[in-house]
Amino acid sequence: MPLGEFELIDRFFREAGGRRGDVVIGVGDDGAILRPPEGFDLIAVSDTLVEGVHFPAGAPARSVGHRALAVNLSDIAAMGGAPAWSLLALTLPRAEEAWLKEFAKGFSLLALEHEVSLVGGDTTRGPLMIGVQVLGFVPHGVALRRAGGRPGDLICVSGTPGDAAAGLALLAPDARAGAGDAASRVALRARFEYPTPRLELGRQLLDIASACIDVSDGLAGDLGKLAAASGCAAVIDLERVPRSEALATLVREGVFEEREALRFMLAGGDDYELAFTVPPENREALAELEARGEVFVIGMLVEATGSAPLVTVRTERTELQPYLDALPSSFDHFGHA
Amino acid sequence: MPLGEFELIDRFFREAGGRRGDVVIGVGDDGAILRPPEGFDLIAVSDTLVEGVHFPAGAPARSVGHRALAVNLSDIAAMGGAPAWSLLALTLPRAEEAWLKEFAKGFSLLALEHEVSLVGGDTTRGPLMIGVQVLGFVPHGVALRRAGGRPGDLICVSGTPGDAAAGLALLAPDARAGAGDAASRVALRARFEYPTPRLELGRQLLDIASACIDVSDGLAGDLGKLAAASGCAAVIDLERVPRSEALATLVREGVFEEREALRFMLAGGDDYELAFTVPPENREALAELEARGEVFVIGMLVEATGSAPLVTVRTERTELQPYLDALPSSFDHFGHA
Repeated sequence: MPLGEFELIDRFFREAGGRRGDVVIGVGDDGAILRPPEGFDLIAVSDTLVEGVHFPAGAPARSVGHRALAVNLSDIAAMGGAPAWSLLALTLPRAEEAWLKEFAKGFSLLALEHEVSLVGGDTTRGPLMIGVQVLGFVPHGVALRRAGGRPGDLICVSGTPGDAAAGLALLAPDARAGAGDAASRVALRARFEYPTPRLELGRQLLDIASACIDVSDGLAGDLGKLAAASGCAAVIDLERVPRSEALATLVREGVFEEREALRFMLAGGDDYELAFTVPPENREALAELEARGEVFVIGMLVEATGSAPLVTVRTERTELQPYLDALPSSFDHFGHA
Repeated sequence: MPLGEFELIDRFFREAGGRRGDVVIGVGDDGAILRPPEGFDLIAVSDTLVEGVHFPAGAPARSVGHRALAVNLSDIAAMGGAPAWSLLALTLPRAEEAWLKEFAKGFSLLALEHEVSLVGGDTTRGPLMIGVQVLGFVPHGVALRRAGGRPGDLICVSGTPGDAAAGLALLAPDARAGAGDAASRVALRARFEYPTPRLELGRQLLDIASACIDVSDGLAGDLGKLAAASGCAAVIDLERVPRSEALATLVREGVFEEREALRFMLAGGDDYELAFTVPPENREALAELEARGEVFVIGMLVEATGSAPLVTVRTERTELQPYLDALPSSFDHFGHA
């Protein structure tokens, strides 16, 4: 059931997301007119999902809609901000009503949850690709950055990294399809298809963290970016990196090998957890978050030296060290791995 | 010469465009941190260009970079705003340094001209597609909208519509290639490849116009959107729609047929001129713009009736009327023509 472009935009996007009093004009004019609050800095983030690159061809439309917004909200979270407005640039091979309905549902439910208005966008014919921008706010001058960490700061991560990469691996049509504990499979798959942007945690970190980044390309690689921006190096203790019960179960069952699990945890992307650093003087405030099981201390920033790598993963299991040293640190769309 | 994704972003986009004191953090963190001025509304616009849809395959990279920003600046112009910050989502089949250099040059020169900073973006592997967002400002509460026109308001257009569509036609590899006056060909081609966003005019119109839209999809179609948003109908006098000397020359030389030229003028997209309405009481201020040859009065808004079309193009050349009545009003990526 093909629809005209303008009708498409009207039907699916005019009412998507939350309604906000600070939106003077939303979708339907040449641009949106918005009223930023005084005393706040504006945060602008932009992220694009391409079919076959960022999600498998034929992925559920609702998941695609959710993820397109979630990856952007995650960037806002990493700066300690509160999201407000979003823009959507949707490129579609054809106007398929059922797909659009599900896509809009995935996008809208997450937008409503975080009171984000969809204020603009455009629809274009082409290969499936979703560009989203989100605008948000953070009190004047306090946004978390990648820079700001110092030697001696504790390195922390929220949640259990690697789950999303394991979930994605479970979606691949190979011998593993259907193997292993069903509940664990569902849990990991949900972590890929419906990641949770850590917005509340990000705002709590404004008072605690010295630097922050979201884990989109892989824990080690993203920590490498934080370390580089902070002029430090990162040392991670493998034994302190948390592993979810679901991933542990599937390793025990032989669905995943141990080294595969380590690769997911250290170099798998798509978790959209927060990786951040905490100065020693904020150890007490951090302990509260740790006690709630939300964050884990996994290492420490150290002085950068010319020769040492940006990120080192240490382990007590010495037989693993060569494997860890050879792991690619990050997923790069144009590069290796 | 392939480059890593992060290196790409660094090399081409970190320094693109103007530097502004209101950018706290630009490219290189999870998001940009920006400082909106007080007393202004924020304008957010978003537009995507797809190879083979919005520009011919193999188009010069510099033109693609220019147009990707220009189409967004044009939306800011249509609201009477001043642009400030931009985000770029670039999808590329491969990282080709020469192409990127030229693309960045086209984007940056226009950004510098209008003091627009590139504050964020991402690079993805995929079919060539350029998503741009621009954020700008307009004094509190005065932004021009599509709504606001009333019956009796004069309909005006800047520049000479149809030139870009004619320029695009000249790029097609058909019998016309190379035919006709060279200077006229160059002029029309430039109107497609390097459109001028009418930012200064847009700001002047804040005090004069009742409604405004930019001409991206075709004069008649875009005026139809303005008329619909204003609850009116539009009547255009064909004889008052200006034709450029370049287009007139190529019609005289037989490169284009008369009807083809009319189709370019009324339904050809990509001009990025402004179409707007002016209440009779602002006739005098409008006359100054007319005297400078920048804008042309081409018709009038009238009461909408249930039966009459949203846009009527009248002509003294009665033999043309059936042709005009049958012209598709707008370019629709998912629909007809």
